Amino acid sequence: MAPNLDSYFKTVDDNADHFIERLRQAVAIPSVSAEEERRPDVVKMGMWLKEQLESLGAHMEARDLGKQPGKEHLHLPPAIVGSYPAKKDDSKRTILVYGHYDVQPANLSDGWNTEPFKLSIDDKGRMYGRGSTDDKGPVLGWVNVIEAHQKAGVDFPVNLLMCFEGMEEYGSEGLDDFIIAECKPGKFFADADAVCISDNYWLGTEKPCLTYGLRGCSYYSIEISGPGQDLHSGVFGGTAQEPMTDLVRVMGTLVDTNGRIQIPGIYELVAPLTKEEQGLYENIAFTMDNLYESLGSKTGIFDKKEETLMGRWRYPSLSIHGVEGAFSAPGAKTVIPAKVVGKFSIRTVPDMEPHEVDQLVYSYVNEQFKKLGSKNKLNCYLQHSGKWWVASPKHWNFTAAAKAVEKVWKVQPDLTREGGSIPVTLTFEQATGKNVLLLPMGSSTDAAHSINEKLDRGNYITGTKLLGSYLHYVAEEPMKE
Amino acid sequence: MAPNLDSYFKTVDDNADHFIERLRQAVAIPSVSAEEERRPDVVKMGMWLKEQLESLGAHMEARDLGKQPGKEHLHLPPAIVGSYPAKKDDSKRTILVYGHYDVQPANLSDGWNTEPFKLSIDDKGRMYGRGSTDDKGPVLGWVNVIEAHQKAGVDFPVNLLMCFEGMEEYGSEGLDDFIIAECKPGKFFADADAVCISDNYWLGTEKPCLTYGLRGCSYYSIEISGPGQDLHSGVFGGTAQEPMTDLVRVMGTLVDTNGRIQIPGIYELVAPLTKEEQGLYENIAFTMDNLYESLGSKTGIFDKKEETLMGRWRYPSLSIHGVEGAFSAPGAKTVIPAKVVGKFSIRTVPDMEPHEVDQLVYSYVNEQFKKLGSKNKLNCYLQHSGKWWVASPKHWNFTAAAKAVEKVWKVQPDLTREGGSIPVTLTFEQATGKNVLLLPMGSSTDAAHSINEKLDRGNYITGTKLLGSYLHYVAEEPMKE
Ligand SMILES: [Zn+2]
Ligand SMILES: [Zn+2]
Ligand SMILES: [Zn+2]
Ligand SMILES: [Zn+2]
Repeated sequence: MAPNLDSYFKTVDDNADHFIERLRQAVAIPSVSAEEERRPDVVKMGMWLKEQLESLGAHMEARDLGKQPGKEHLHLPPAIVGSYPAKKDDSKRTILVYGHYDVQPANLSDGWNTEPFKLSIDDKGRMYGRGSTDDKGPVLGWVNVIEAHQKAGVDFPVNLLMCFEGMEEYGSEGLDDFIIAECKPGKFFADADAVCISDNYWLGTEKPCLTYGLRGCSYYSIEISGPGQDLHSGVFGGTAQEPMTDLVRVMGTLVDTNGRIQIPGIYELVAPLTKEEQGLYENIAFTMDNLYESLGSKTGIFDKKEETLMGRWRYPSLSIHGVEGAFSAPGAKTVIPAKVVGKFSIRTVPDMEPHEVDQLVYSYVNEQFKKLGSKNKLNCYLQHSGKWWVASPKHWNFTAAAKAVEKVWKVQPDLTREGGSIPVTLTFEQATGKNVLLLPMGSSTDAAHSINEKLDRGNYITGTKLLGSYLHYVAEEPMKE
Repeated sequence: MAPNLDSYFKTVDDNADHFIERLRQAVAIPSVSAEEERRPDVVKMGMWLKEQLESLGAHMEARDLGKQPGKEHLHLPPAIVGSYPAKKDDSKRTILVYGHYDVQPANLSDGWNTEPFKLSIDDKGRMYGRGSTDDKGPVLGWVNVIEAHQKAGVDFPVNLLMCFEGMEEYGSEGLDDFIIAECKPGKFFADADAVCISDNYWLGTEKPCLTYGLRGCSYYSIEISGPGQDLHSGVFGGTAQEPMTDLVRVMGTLVDTNGRIQIPGIYELVAPLTKEEQGLYENIAFTMDNLYESLGSKTGIFDKKEETLMGRWRYPSLSIHGVEGAFSAPGAKTVIPAKVVGKFSIRTVPDMEPHEVDQLVYSYVNEQFKKLGSKNKLNCYLQHSGKWWVASPKHWNFTAAAKAVEKVWKVQPDLTREGGSIPVTLTFEQATGKNVLLLPMGSSTDAAHSINEKLDRGNYITGTKLLGSYLHYVAEEPMKE
């Protein structure tokens, strides 16, 4: 039986300006986690969020995460956790939602058209401001959902558990251990039946999607060293073996122009493409023009959208990010760097085991270096790695979300994966053992992490309806895992 | 007939402390040309030098070189030019000497053991201080020469023309045009019969040398661009052709680990090695341990000193300096840079014509890039180029200097070339049409441009004798060009 959501929807519409005012207040707090001097603002933002929810009757706690690793003079902002209703109703399902209240750095001088920490709405309803879409809009969506239910007098359909962090844009310091601990029996998140994360974006601008997969990322360094100190190329050029020469030769063997990884064995680790999966890509709302627009050029690898989507979602890729220790400024400097560190990463997909990838990388890189016959020293090592994640889109968590999308957006959502990583997703899956759904609010043009970040008014208000509807459908869905 | 220099030498010895005091005063003026806020100190240093010479009766002029190109709010320090005696003696030869009164930046916090702008003499007579050897010691050598002749009552053997600049460590801005103009008939440097530059170093620590050759340098950029802006490797890895991938593949084809340039045609431009030249390297005071010590490692290309010296002096080399536009900081960043600029330079030697080298480079780089089949754009261009220089060491300017070395150091000097460039050398040769001699005062361990720069007391005092003796021998040498 489809839930009756009419009075809820009407209340959301009636309170739209109030919800936008709430977002305006949130954007005005410059909760930049990467900047030390903004740390008090991050904490202020967490406390503001806690008070918003407390005033709606939620039980909230600010949990201390300790000192910031490597910056012991800095305290981490708290994890803001809560439950609504304050007292659990054992007859209802429990849904754990996650979001983050910190934001990326932003300065007007970076090229913003408006003050980044002042919500500015243009005549097309685009609401500009840092954090508007990433991730304050979606987080406040949950606050709005609670308030609208109260104002509409509609019974809240689930037990809602909330986990909002303040360090997402700076590596989610301290959060993994916290989640794992709080998912243990008897702890705060122990009763979660499913997880919902709203911290990603539609594939395009028109069609909503549900996201069920993310690639992993293994990030490597190739360090090559020889001379005791940087050398002058006039004095030593032609007499010393140069680490930078070796590095570009080794890095030049990693991947070709069309993105084909040259490391033997990598593709053997990739789950084969089934006929069924192959059929899925054709119907996704995505065009090559979407790609060209976001690339800002036509320098794509593939000409077809299906291959492009597979290249982004279901095949590994290797990118070379740069070189540390070499000359990197504008102009000309005739230095022979004594030690250079090349950086590259591999985006991983099912069924690539990270440590197997590591071994293939190390042995290939060492072999390529050996071929050079160099007297320099090479050291190839992993900087960090996060595993890929794929959930079942047939789970009731997803079917409920799909019905909610149809209800509010009048269209069936695309089932998508993403090329990037949201490491907390895998943490929640592993810690709860439950299905995790990525339910985006914003669209592909929102420019998260860039200048002129925005959230469309429609995505925010209809998104608030969507989050609420999802809770109603998820409460009703038959419990097939 | 060998000149009698006994009373001159004795006077230099008697005035050693006075000459060291002169160097102490010069080092105390932090004439760092690269730092805007030190510009008044550079000018002060030039004026101090001018007064020192004026007080000895020289005719001196401070010549305005205009505004600093690209930094129009900054005035260039003057070229300090002069003649001694003030009135030219037409019966004598005219020798033009060059030096620079500006210095490299230096801060105690860089790792200096003593205050960089305070001359500190240790118990081995090593005089530490920024500019001690590069190039205040040699410049003051000429001042000391004049003073010692006066005090000894010895007739000054030549007409001395002086050209001291204050921007050498920052690209000798404005100097080339000035030299060219002043070498024209009727102008200040018009009467020079030969040129002597004291702004380089012995090959080792024990044996003096005369330098007759320098390599040139052609500095190139390879710019590869594609996407409209930097991309996230999660979202675009595997779907976009990456400029950095193309760049490392192209740069990886330029040179091998043993320094062999892979660009076809380069070695065909190099003057063949003659039997006579081949024999010269064996006797040079240089060992592989000298190389390993200065390298700080054993990662040299060759095992033999002869090959090593040839690799440094008479063969071209190619060094890859770095990449602009890619990730270059410590840590990990998963960016796909939209535009990267690889920097490399080729040290050139006789008979490589710079523009021929350019053509070989452009066509090879473009060909390598074409092989990749990339949709990205490549632009390979020259940043700057300076030609190699080789003088005849049989010229009277050199034979006179060799006799002077034998007289003061009791040893025949090595005839050396250098791997680096001193662009003003070629400018003087071309502007005067006369022989140019590089007559070093300091030794290879003086650490010019590094922390703890020093000049040995012996090199300074005996060097002052050397410069004076050179003027006597050069005055007597038969005029075979
Ligand atoms: Zn986010
Ligand atoms: Zn973000
Ligand atoms: Zn110098
Ligand atoms: Zn210098």
